[in-house]
Formats: sequence, structure tokens, C-alpha cells
Amino acid sequence: MCSYLDGTVNLYMRPEEGVTVAVDLDEMRIVGFVDRVTVPVPKPNGTDYSGLQKRVGPALKRIGLVQPDGPSFAVDGHMIRWANWEFHLSFDVRAGPIISLSLIYDAEQQEFRQVMYRGFISELFVPYMDLTEEWYYRTFFDAGEYGFGLYAVQLEPLRDCPENAAFMDAYIAGQDRKPIKMSNVFRVFERYAGDIRWHHTELGIPGKVIREVRPEVNLVVRMVSTVGNYDYIVDWEFKQSGSIKATVGLTGLLEVRGSNYTHNDQIADEEYGVLLAENTLSAPHDHFLIFHLDLDIDSDSNSFVKFVFRQTPVTDRRSPRKSYWSVVSETAKTKSDTKIKLGSEQVELLVVNPGKKTKVGNRVGYRLIPGSITQPLLSDDDYAQIRRAFTKYNVWVTPYNTSEKWAGGLYTDQSNGEDTLATWTQRNRAMENKDIVLWYTLGFPHAPYQEDFPLMLTLSSGFELRPANFFESNPVLRVIPPGVVEWPNCSIPSVI
Amino acid sequence: MCSYLDGTVNLYMRPEEGVTVAVDLDEMRIVGFVDRVTVPVPKPNGTDYSGLQKRVGPALKRIGLVQPDGPSFAVDGHMIRWANWEFHLSFDVRAGPIISLSLIYDAEQQEFRQVMYRGFISELFVPYMDLTEEWYYRTFFDAGEYGFGLYAVQLEPLRDCPENAAFMDAYIAGQDRKPIKMSNVFRVFERYAGDIRWHHTELGIPGKVIREVRPEVNLVVRMVSTVGNYDYIVDWEFKQSGSIKATVGLTGLLEVRGSNYTHNDQIADEEYGVLLAENTLSAPHDHFLIFHLDLDIDSDSNSFVKFVFRQTPVTDRRSPRKSYWSVVSETAKTKSDTKIKLGSEQVELLVVNPGKKTKVGNRVGYRLIPGSITQPLLSDDDYAQIRRAFTKYNVWVTPYNTSEKWAGGLYTDQSNGEDTLATWTQRNRAMENKDIVLWYTLGFPHAPYQEDFPLMLTLSSGFELRPANFFESNPVLRVIPPGVVEWPNCSIPSVI
Repeated sequence: MCSYLDGTVNLYMRPEEGVTVAVDLDEMRIVGFVDRVTVPVPKPNGTDYSGLQKRVGPALKRIGLVQPDGPSFAVDGHMIRWANWEFHLSFDVRAGPIISLSLIYDAEQQEFRQVMYRGFISELFVPYMDLTEEWYYRTFFDAGEYGFGLYAVQLEPLRDCPENAAFMDAYIAGQDRKPIKMSNVFRVFERYAGDIRWHHTELGIPGKVIREVRPEVNLVVRMVSTVGNYDYIVDWEFKQSGSIKATVGLTGLLEVRGSNYTHNDQIADEEYGVLLAENTLSAPHDHFLIFHLDLDIDSDSNSFVKFVFRQTPVTDRRSPRKSYWSVVSETAKTKSDTKIKLGSEQVELLVVNPGKKTKVGNRVGYRLIPGSITQPLLSDDDYAQIRRAFTKYNVWVTPYNTSEKWAGGLYTDQSNGEDTLATWTQRNRAMENKDIVLWYTLGFPHAPYQEDFPLMLTLSSGFELRPANFFESNPVLRVIPPGVVEWPNCSIPSVI
Repeated sequence: MCSYLDGTVNLYMRPEEGVTVAVDLDEMRIVGFVDRVTVPVPKPNGTDYSGLQKRVGPALKRIGLVQPDGPSFAVDGHMIRWANWEFHLSFDVRAGPIISLSLIYDAEQQEFRQVMYRGFISELFVPYMDLTEEWYYRTFFDAGEYGFGLYAVQLEPLRDCPENAAFMDAYIAGQDRKPIKMSNVFRVFERYAGDIRWHHTELGIPGKVIREVRPEVNLVVRMVSTVGNYDYIVDWEFKQSGSIKATVGLTGLLEVRGSNYTHNDQIADEEYGVLLAENTLSAPHDHFLIFHLDLDIDSDSNSFVKFVFRQTPVTDRRSPRKSYWSVVSETAKTKSDTKIKLGSEQVELLVVNPGKKTKVGNRVGYRLIPGSITQPLLSDDDYAQIRRAFTKYNVWVTPYNTSEKWAGGLYTDQSNGEDTLATWTQRNRAMENKDIVLWYTLGFPHAPYQEDFPLMLTLSSGFELRPANFFESNPVLRVIPPGVVEWPNCSIPSVI
């Protein structure tokens, strides 16, 4: 892909359309060249996002998030301990952050309990909906082909994260087999957004007013990966309540195509994309991220359970009501139960430990609260879709297999779809009371709007893993509330 | 409903089950009394949430969010001005906060532009899935029957909101027609959670590294309403990018039913609910909130547009690809286009101004990004469902009508379903290029877990109204970044 830089630092907004270059990578030599079509190169006007001179107000007054006594977490090598949590954070050149061996301290049972053995982003898939000669093959695997960790950026204090965060470096193997240090790829910090963890006001007791509120303070592990034009912000967030949240924010630059058009009125036939500026078409595309979530709830003998919220008609006159709904529990037994399309029925998805129950007899578990629920929009026989068949379902479940890490296949570049999550799940493996892995596909179908030009504002989604009969009762009721302070007398040394 | 308080302040965890009392409200006299069934009253153990003695650590270190130069917003009566926004905030005894007359300053066009004429919570519906004599009728309308504003609680600094928030009081009419002051029902504050508004790192330009990041600072208007046992946290959040987000957090106490059961193994037949503790059953229920969103995008002549992401098979060998998807725009013309069930197809929902286009010819608009997508689980002929028929679709659109404010009917108490959103939309009214109202149903089907006992941790969802070809390009690229400060030298006067 060739592009002009004259008059802009935006590498993606001035494509030299229609040019295909064939390179022999052994010889490092251009062996072919096609200039298929000539279209205008979009103008540089309005494409810059750095070093802009004309600033727009009003300026917001200064704001800061700080902890006078330092942070509450401790980093010991790659182990992180905070509040009732401990977990291992490691860096993978392909996946980026890997959270593993996460344990939560149960104050009632007075022991650490297993929650997630390992969680990471297994693959990202970004196919463009443009069939022109230079575009149809742009169906990128950002983990398997590029390296989501490899493209991690160096995070900066007070800009990428609030003050009072801790850094962590990463090391990768260089092409000469020597280690290469990547500085500040992770930041760990405590997040306080003014949110409320729980609240109740009681006015119903004569002569008494009860007001109880707790502010929400959580721990966040952040990495930002810039794979070419797009920037992905990945947050793993831990709550004292036992929840683990993952949030992915999409920002950065679009890929655009040069075009003759300067106004929509000139477009008679279907074009691949939307006109965002003069001579600038932007094709719809998807961002699919698939998470590998190997939960081990109190052991590695777990089952996957679907709670179906089912309407029951009332026909026997036992009540003036004509209907109600109740929860029907279905436990996955084999492969056919392991692929979930969400959206058509009201369900909750759980991983439970069938061998362990609460005092009143509920199976201990965690549930997955999905964020966006999307569907793949390519046909099953499309080569791109065959390779990324993992997007076909929102949730998959597999028995743990050490080789089944990469949902798009171990060797993604050469993949023909034979080694993917979709093929693994065709085997009729037992699923009950086993070490199982949950896979969640987080999708962002992206039809561009002019606000995305020349740089897209963060759009976020994710999921939450929330305790579901894991604790005997609310686990944070007796937790000492976070000290929230006011700060009237400060000398402020630095402003950015 | 009768309950014991001996040994607890939790008014809802010790119900005296099976007792129904009939009261003549004119005479203020008990006229009837049924004691249908005798079941144990649940024990008080573990039900308290206030004044707890035994605290659990570790304690988190102190944290605070402050602005040394004060806030960036100004409150002038009920008008609030912040950054590029101005809007009116008022209090309604039924709806709680009403946001109206919201305008955003467009720095490029150098003018204020209309976005939302009025937005508020029109109704809340909380039906329980328990058909027993004392429960089947518990299908509460928290706005129309109780008053979502009436039950607003007095917010406290550093607990319900970060420091540096501004308060606002409300006034309601008393039964003696004299005004009653409700103190501190709203708090307005700037939210900084360490999030990133936009980011790009460019390593692709030889000899140059570009790193641009902007922290996200937004304005929040908060109200908390405690309607009996449940507490609702309502946040309206404004972004410099033009987005308006609404988030509702559910917390507080469950309603539970006394029962003979002390363990699941004793339950042979279907029971209405889950055993959360000994003698304590909790029935599944729903929380449906419906928002009235009267957008006026640059005028009150707007249309509702559905962007359908449609798969197109490729059969003509023009490309090695077998399929792609594109965006098909459908404009609502009459009533049949005005009820949307989400989940089955991939769509984006927009309100556009058909009379106003961007320079390259896109219609200016805003889109609704829904949070949770739920379905009603009661049958159409259920009396409860007839009255709350507004839950049947996720999104509705109506032409503006001054009397169509309350989705469950103006007189909810006596409603038989004749005056509801579902009946209004049966009329064949023109929808195109009109003053239209968007209605979004935010649903929380709630199957209780033991972690909800005796007090539920906040569970949130909501929606975002995001500019969609409203601006010519990214509107915050040139905005002066919020000053984010570090604070090493502070004297801290108060800790809570």
C-alpha cells in the first residue's frame, strides 16, 4: 500500500489508490508492479492530528486522581496483589497481556479461592468490505499475523493513565535471538471514577434514617496496542466484589480509499464505503476480538451452564396472572451444547463447579455478562470467513487442550481454516465436570461516520465475569470502605 | 406487606409471609385481614448492612479526585454550561431529572446546534415472577405509581459523588399545596476515570515517532432514587465529542419471600425463586426503564433511519471473495416502521435531519447505541403486560405529541393499558421529516444470586447518543486537552 505524506502526518488518509507492488522477500526486490487505476489522492486538508496550531476552547480546568499514601497494590515480579486479589500478569508477543492464576481471598471461608486459570485475547480479526483489487484481501489477523503484543506502545504517565500507576516492562526475542526490552507496556493503577459500589437509603423504619454508600475503587491493568492504523486500549479490571471486567477501546485512524467522488450526489451505483471527505471513501469493516477465558472455579472440574429465562403460560386459574418466567438450567454435555448465539432468547451463561455447593445448595460459579452481541456478516464459504469461523458464535466452550490457544489457528498466515476453534469443537468431547475454556467473541461492526475522520474517538465494549453463587452472600458488605479524600491545600508542580 | 425488624435494620429480609391486610383509606381503618399460610420468618443473621462491627481488610489506601482551580462548569439557575455544552436540568416528581434544550457549540460552524429537546425516564416497571396470593400483583410502576423523583435521596459529598461536585435542590408541591424543599437531589461533577478519549501512535513514518493521547474528562449529572427496597443511580453524562450517555445502576435490597426450605435438596416441585439463605426465597423479576428521548437534530424536522448491515453474496466472479456486507438505509415512514426488536439483525438506529447535509452530502444525525437488549417474558394477554406493553420492543418512535409523555399511561394506578405507548403507535401517523421522539427500553431481567443477599452490588447499563455525520469531522481534535495534574504535596484534612 502506497500513500502520500505531503502536507500531513496522517499516513492513512492520502492513499495512492490502485497500485499493487509484488516483492520477492528473499531477494528483497520488486518483481512486479501494477498501476490498475488512477484516482485522485485525497487532499491533506483536515487530516492532521498532531502538532495542530489552531486550538479550540474552552479549556477545562485541571483535574487529577491521586493517592497521598501511594497505591494499595504490590507488584512482586509478575505477581500482582491488591485488596482480596492476587494474579500473575505476563506479556505475550502475540496476545499482549495474559492474566493467570487469579485467586480471590474469601474472608468468610478464610482462604484463597481459584477463579481464572488464564485469560487473554486469542485473536483479532479485521476484514474490510471492499472487493476492489487492492482491498478484497484486507482481512487482517492482528494477533496471529501481526502480534498484538509486538505492537504494544510505551505508555506515558498522566496521559495514557492517571498519576500513581506502576509500569511494567516486557521482553521479546529479537530476530538475532537476543532479548529486546519493551518499556512501559503495562500500567497498573487504581481506578476511581466517582462510581458507587453499593447504596441503600432506608426511610421505612419509623424514627430512623439509614444511609449507606460505598465508593467504587478498582484495580486496572492496561495495555495499548497500535496495529498499523488502529489503536486498541485493553483494560483488565478487578473488583473487590469478585468481578473481573475486560474492556477494549477502539481508537486511531481509519483506512480509506481514494476516489473521484467529492459529493454523495455523484454516487449512482453501490460503492464500497461512505464518503467521509472529498475523494475519501471508507469501507465498512469489522473488529472481532476473541477472548480465551479458562475459568477454574474452585478447581479445574467445572461445567458450563445456560440459564434460560422461560415464559410459562398460566392456564390453571391458580392466579389472576396469565404468565410468568422462571429460570431453567441446562448443563452442556457435548459439542452440540458448546456454541451459543445470543440475542434470540434471554439467557445467562455460567461456569459452575458441580462438586461444590453453597450452604443452601446452589452450585458455586461465575457468570459471563457479555457486552456487545454481534453476528458475522460474511457467508460460510467465504475464504475470510472460513479462517475466522470463530466469529460465527458469540460464546464457545471447549474442554481444555494445551494446543488450543489460538482461535484462528497456530499458523495464522498460512491458515486454511483447518486448525481453528470451529474445527476443534466438531469433535464430540465430554464437557461436564471437566477443565473447560470459555471463548467470548467481542465484535465491533464498524460503519464509518464523518466523526471518525481523520481520527476515531474511543468506542468501548467488553464483558464482565461476575460471581454467581460463588460467595455465600455479598462479599464486600464488611469490607473497610476506600478512604475518599478531599484536597484543598496542594502545591501543584506540573501540568501537561 | 408485614415484616419483622428484630435483630436487623434490613426491612425486607424478614417478611411475615402470607398476611394480607385490607385498609379503607378514607376511613384509615383496617377492614379485612387474611392470614393465609404460616411459614418461618427468615433469621436475622447476615441481613444487616449498616452499623456492622466486624470489618474486613485489607483497607485500600486513600484516593481522591479533585480540581485545584475549581470545576469547569457553571450553574446558572437551572442552566448548566460546560465545555461546548449547555442544557437545562430540571426536577420532576415523577421522572426525576429532565434534561432539556441541550445545545452543543460547533467550533467549525461557530454556532450552537440543537441536539436533544428533552430526555427523561418516562416509566419504570418491576414485575415479580411469583404467583402466590401475596405476590402475583407486585408489578410496580416506580415512576407512575410511586414517583421516581419523589423518592430521590439527599446525596452526600465524597460518598455518592467525588469531591468538587455542585449540588442542586428540588422543590415539590406538598399535600397542603405548600412547596417542599428536597435538598441535594442532583449532583453535577466532572468525571475523570483515567480513560482515554483518543490515542494514536505512529511508527510508520521513517525517522519520526508520533504519540498523541487525550484523557477523557466528562460532565455528569447524578440522581439516586430509592423506591422502597431498590436504589437506582441515574447518570446523564456529556462528552465534548458530542455524545450524551445515560447510565442506570441498580443496587439496594431484594424483596424476598419467607419459606420452609433451608436447602435446595428439599425443593421438589417448582418454586417461585431461588434459595438465597435459609428460609429465604427470592423470585426472578424484571427492571424495565423506558427513556423518552426527544432529539431535535438541528431543528424539529427529523426522520428515524435504520441502517441495516446486510450480507451480499458475490456470485459474479468480480472478486475472489464470496461475500461482503454493506449498509442499507431504511427511513421510517409510518407506524409499522416504528417498533424495533433488536438482536435478530445487525442494525444501527439514527435520528437524522433530512433537510441538512454535510459538505459531502451525508444527512446530519445522531445514533443510539443501546446497552442491554432484553425481551419481555410475559404473554401479551397478561394484565401486567397489557399495562406495560412498552417493554415489548427495544425501541419505539412516535411523532411528538404533548400528551404522550408517560409510556405506561398518564394515570398509571388505574391504567388498563388504553393510554400507553403501545396504543399511541397503533395510529397511522406520518413519521418522516417530523418532530419525532425516540423511546428506548432498558431492561434488567434479574435472576437473583446469593451475592445479592442481603444487599445487591451495583449492576449498570444504559445507552449512548453519539453524533453520526453531525459534525464534518472529529470535533475534538483541536480541543485544548484537559490539564491532568499530579499532586505530590497536599495536606489532607478529611477522610471518610
